[in-house]
Amino acid sequence: MVVEEGRVRAVIESVRPEIDCGRFAIKRTTGEKVVVEADIFADGHDVVSARLLHRHAQNAEWSEVPMEPLVNDRWRGEFAVYELGQYRYTLQAWVDHFGTWQRDLGKRVEAGQEVSVDLLMGAQLVEEAVPRASEADASLLRQYARDLRMETGGAERVRRALSEDLRGLMARYPDRSFATTYSRELAVVVDRERARFSSWYELFPRSTSPKPGGHGSFKDVEARLPYVAELGFDVLYLPPIHPIGRAFRKGRNNSPTSSEGEPGSPWGIGSVQGGHKSVHPQLGTLEDFRHLVVAARAWGLEIALDIAFQSSPDHPYAQAHPGWFRHRPDGTIQYAENPPKKYQDIYPFDFETEQWREMWEELKTVFLFWIDQDVRIFRVDNPHTKPYRFWEWLIGEIKATYPEVILLSEAFTRPKVMYHLAKLGFSQSYTYFTWRNEKRELTEYFTELTRTEVEEFFRPNLWPNTPDILTEQLQQGGSPAFMIRLVLAATLGASYGIYGPAFELMENRPKEPGSEEYLDSEKYEIKDWDIDRADSLRGVIARVNRIRRENLPLQSNRNLRFHPVDNDQLICYSKATDDLFDLILVVVNLDYRWRQSGWVELPLEELGMDPDQTYQLHDLLTDARYLWHGPRNYVELDPHQLPAHVFRIRRRIGKEGETNDYE
Amino acid sequence: MVVEEGRVRAVIESVRPEIDCGRFAIKRTTGEKVVVEADIFADGHDVVSARLLHRHAQNAEWSEVPMEPLVNDRWRGEFAVYELGQYRYTLQAWVDHFGTWQRDLGKRVEAGQEVSVDLLMGAQLVEEAVPRASEADASLLRQYARDLRMETGGAERVRRALSEDLRGLMARYPDRSFATTYSRELAVVVDRERARFSSWYELFPRSTSPKPGGHGSFKDVEARLPYVAELGFDVLYLPPIHPIGRAFRKGRNNSPTSSEGEPGSPWGIGSVQGGHKSVHPQLGTLEDFRHLVVAARAWGLEIALDIAFQSSPDHPYAQAHPGWFRHRPDGTIQYAENPPKKYQDIYPFDFETEQWREMWEELKTVFLFWIDQDVRIFRVDNPHTKPYRFWEWLIGEIKATYPEVILLSEAFTRPKVMYHLAKLGFSQSYTYFTWRNEKRELTEYFTELTRTEVEEFFRPNLWPNTPDILTEQLQQGGSPAFMIRLVLAATLGASYGIYGPAFELMENRPKEPGSEEYLDSEKYEIKDWDIDRADSLRGVIARVNRIRRENLPLQSNRNLRFHPVDNDQLICYSKATDDLFDLILVVVNLDYRWRQSGWVELPLEELGMDPDQTYQLHDLLTDARYLWHGPRNYVELDPHQLPAHVFRIRRRIGKEGETNDYE
Repeated sequence: MVVEEGRVRAVIESVRPEIDCGRFAIKRTTGEKVVVEADIFADGHDVVSARLLHRHAQNAEWSEVPMEPLVNDRWRGEFAVYELGQYRYTLQAWVDHFGTWQRDLGKRVEAGQEVSVDLLMGAQLVEEAVPRASEADASLLRQYARDLRMETGGAERVRRALSEDLRGLMARYPDRSFATTYSRELAVVVDRERARFSSWYELFPRSTSPKPGGHGSFKDVEARLPYVAELGFDVLYLPPIHPIGRAFRKGRNNSPTSSEGEPGSPWGIGSVQGGHKSVHPQLGTLEDFRHLVVAARAWGLEIALDIAFQSSPDHPYAQAHPGWFRHRPDGTIQYAENPPKKYQDIYPFDFETEQWREMWEELKTVFLFWIDQDVRIFRVDNPHTKPYRFWEWLIGEIKATYPEVILLSEAFTRPKVMYHLAKLGFSQSYTYFTWRNEKRELTEYFTELTRTEVEEFFRPNLWPNTPDILTEQLQQGGSPAFMIRLVLAATLGASYGIYGPAFELMENRPKEPGSEEYLDSEKYEIKDWDIDRADSLRGVIARVNRIRRENLPLQSNRNLRFHPVDNDQLICYSKATDDLFDLILVVVNLDYRWRQSGWVELPLEELGMDPDQTYQLHDLLTDARYLWHGPRNYVELDPHQLPAHVFRIRRRIGKEGETNDYE
Repeated sequence: MVVEEGRVRAVIESVRPEIDCGRFAIKRTTGEKVVVEADIFADGHDVVSARLLHRHAQNAEWSEVPMEPLVNDRWRGEFAVYELGQYRYTLQAWVDHFGTWQRDLGKRVEAGQEVSVDLLMGAQLVEEAVPRASEADASLLRQYARDLRMETGGAERVRRALSEDLRGLMARYPDRSFATTYSRELAVVVDRERARFSSWYELFPRSTSPKPGGHGSFKDVEARLPYVAELGFDVLYLPPIHPIGRAFRKGRNNSPTSSEGEPGSPWGIGSVQGGHKSVHPQLGTLEDFRHLVVAARAWGLEIALDIAFQSSPDHPYAQAHPGWFRHRPDGTIQYAENPPKKYQDIYPFDFETEQWREMWEELKTVFLFWIDQDVRIFRVDNPHTKPYRFWEWLIGEIKATYPEVILLSEAFTRPKVMYHLAKLGFSQSYTYFTWRNEKRELTEYFTELTRTEVEEFFRPNLWPNTPDILTEQLQQGGSPAFMIRLVLAATLGASYGIYGPAFELMENRPKEPGSEEYLDSEKYEIKDWDIDRADSLRGVIARVNRIRRENLPLQSNRNLRFHPVDNDQLICYSKATDDLFDLILVVVNLDYRWRQSGWVELPLEELGMDPDQTYQLHDLLTDARYLWHGPRNYVELDPHQLPAHVFRIRRRIGKEGETNDYE
């Protein structure tokens, strides 16, 4: 074993955050902090110093911040990220001979020992720092060295030697000849804020026509923008807008055959009219689509497109690139299957084709095409059925040029697969929230998502319903169930979304008992939604989205904490800003049938509250105000009125009279 | 981003064991297993196969064992290590097209679908395997392919296609063209059994003279061998045996000055009579030492030496290599300090010297010298005050040639430093056991040592006392305290040691109240121990060591489990072999003053016991036998009789009449 340099003495290990030994980046949005911790120590008893190094990937130069020891050889440092793209960070540590000398001199002096030789040793260390110092500091250091070498003035020499001023000066010019640099450079992907905080509304453009039974168009969607904006959403997500295949086109209720005039599924992409870069003619033109993108922006809405990498048998790819599909011994192209089920209207791409490289490049151009139309958010359909290497490459390529692009992974699959896709670069991910109804399972799942390493790379996007999923609870629970799921999604997650107008109109008829498919699913037919129905949830949705916009704690997933309630039907959690200044407390009755009551228990001191002082809770849903005192307080919620409280807690903090009451 | 091969689809991550991303090896002894787990999955729904690859570092060829899926994409495989030295392991996974095809075919057949084209696809996969197969298997495969391609005999063809035989044949020749190989090769250091299971006895050779006040010698130690063997130990560890310095020699009770004739501390190494490769003349000659090593072996004892890398001012190194020490501005050599304390009798080596390489090489020859005298176990003094790189290099160099060498790290310091030294290669480590007296702290500490990743690299060696440490409990608790600490050390740890004869003679006088130093410490003077004293603990120590030798569960640290007792003064734990066949249950009264009683609660099923059957507990300390029934049973222990039970549990397992009662 060959050792290049035996005098390197510091050790850096157990660095956090660090995903899979640095294989993957952590995620942040602009303005957020990266707090880095590590075990740092050296042999013996010398003082150790450490710095956190960070830079934007486009800069060659590192910036440095000092790391501070916590306890048990654990150190911490932090930096903030301000620009989109990738950052890098790593650490450096070294034995600090001057720090050791100064600490030991203090002890010797305190013990009344003779220190003249020690002062000479200090002078030597100071002199060695001179060549590393700026011109001005070098002259200060030379003066210190002269002082320490004087043969008279003992007490003053010691005072100078132990001074904070000298400590600070020397700390600026440490001797790092034998410093340890951490073996890995770790990456941060920095996204824009919407990657962290977003409210999605999904609608089928073809169902927006004012004419009953008519085929909606981009122009009709434009007319719907004020409505979506009034609801308070900021992302308007459209299922695929491309020409729909004719071969084996699905009919109503997923029928394997369709009659003439049935519109088919938007996910059956591609026909003689074009493929992934074309617009379904009944929706309008590409120009209409661009117009919609611009019009949406004026309403504070961003259009998100669906990218579903699969082809209908009519897709131009099937003719132009037969090699991208698998062929059966009988010469036919292999359609999608989940044996014994067959999906003859879909040809999956064969990612094991020898032409994979050409196919990857073409699929990349699909994204680039829509980016050219000013789309910057994509919902990716079933990413877990395409190879991981493909996504890592594709997302890397896109974000290298367009770091503002946001990709939502629609992978409802096994947990490790979902997490792996997030690690590869997806900005947001669908979650199991959709099926988590009980307190225990919500608590466990969201603790895992927000209080473990998962939080560093996986940004949950919570959907109470989707065009594919009408949960049992929504089928059975009426408007209380819709409100419960709305409040949970909107307050547990910084990002959430609903499939509307099915959601606000509380569409809840399943295809058949036990099925999560909608009866007369919009996936296979045009729907006439009466968005002005009197019982619509639009009012409460608008209120919830306003609360989200106005309260910082609801805009990130950090600092989610669950609190005990002595009733399993009531769930209670808080979200706070890092400084605890803004504090939101949510209590939800998970039972859509019955009134439930219980005692909530809050860790007041940990929430930054004075346990002896009364605090006011302002229910942002109803505007009611409550005065609470002490950690245990009573709550009662009737699902048929409103199944949740979303409280802003107003309390004194800091100096007398300074409160977080900013209304 | 350039992707070399886009068709690699499997992912391997979260591999365990893996220490610090593979930076360090795990440890095993010959005959032990390495159980490896990993998350393994691919995109989509295809069947995945995985293998665990392993080899001795000296072999170029990998051996392979299949990995089996557990739940949630977790896989497991294992291999055993039989040879000393280093092993490597890694993993491979791939999408198994034949496995996928066979699974899907089964589903299609079950659904009554037409499968003739599918059989042709299977035939193709079988034909592709032919070139990978042995000659005999190739001809079997060709026959299968012909069968599958036949145009008649549908049911028989399907039966052949789905056969276990074909599955097994194909599994032997998988297509690994696009297999994923895990990015790291992980290391296992394989030691001999004594690295895992050892019982140490420390004595000062100079205190073994039969003549009162006389200076003991290696010959006297030889005469003591039957005694140490009777006690049941297998490692006899001697403090440094080298010439002791004269400059600033310490006197009795650590006095900074000594009178003529005082022997000084054995750790003040080096004089005109020699240094680390010489023998203190009063102990005898090198020839005498070699004789001792051989004689000890006949008694089942192995001599362990103390390696303390420091010099007295008289050490030949100080004259021959002044550059290996730090010099002060006044020209003197820097002695050891922990300001304001000064240790003028010790010169530490300056590991930041420019001559570090030459010094490292010389220090290595110290080990090699004693290895040449047939010593294979070393207790390394204060390793945490020398650089980590030095130890990693040194241990690597030594064990490359002498993989049977065992090194015990004497680092009583901060936890992360202790763990790091173990990771660097020390075979065993001193622990905080010495100061852990209460149930909660023993439970927490030993859970950390035995049930976490720490168990993979840190082998605890438990010492109730050392020449430096007489704990408060031993000072105050009389023989009950010594027995409590003995039983805990010998049953909580597969390796433990005592400093004798101080231990068995219950030497418990501190230098002063509040000090852990012995009064009249043997470190600074010759002691006359009356090993035949009537109250000596030699009998119980011999019994405990016999119990350890005869019961496999006490010979490893795995499978230590703590069990509840409703009395905080009683601690209860079990140790079992991996197959649960041998089961030891220990109950200790931690209170050396009072009789304590309580109810022990055992998880019978997890311990492999039938909850409905009575089981017998054989107390191996007293030979008493008890019949217990059910999970909760009563225990009462009087520290003034015997403060512990060490039970062997005898119960029926497996077939009627087959028990683990082998007495």
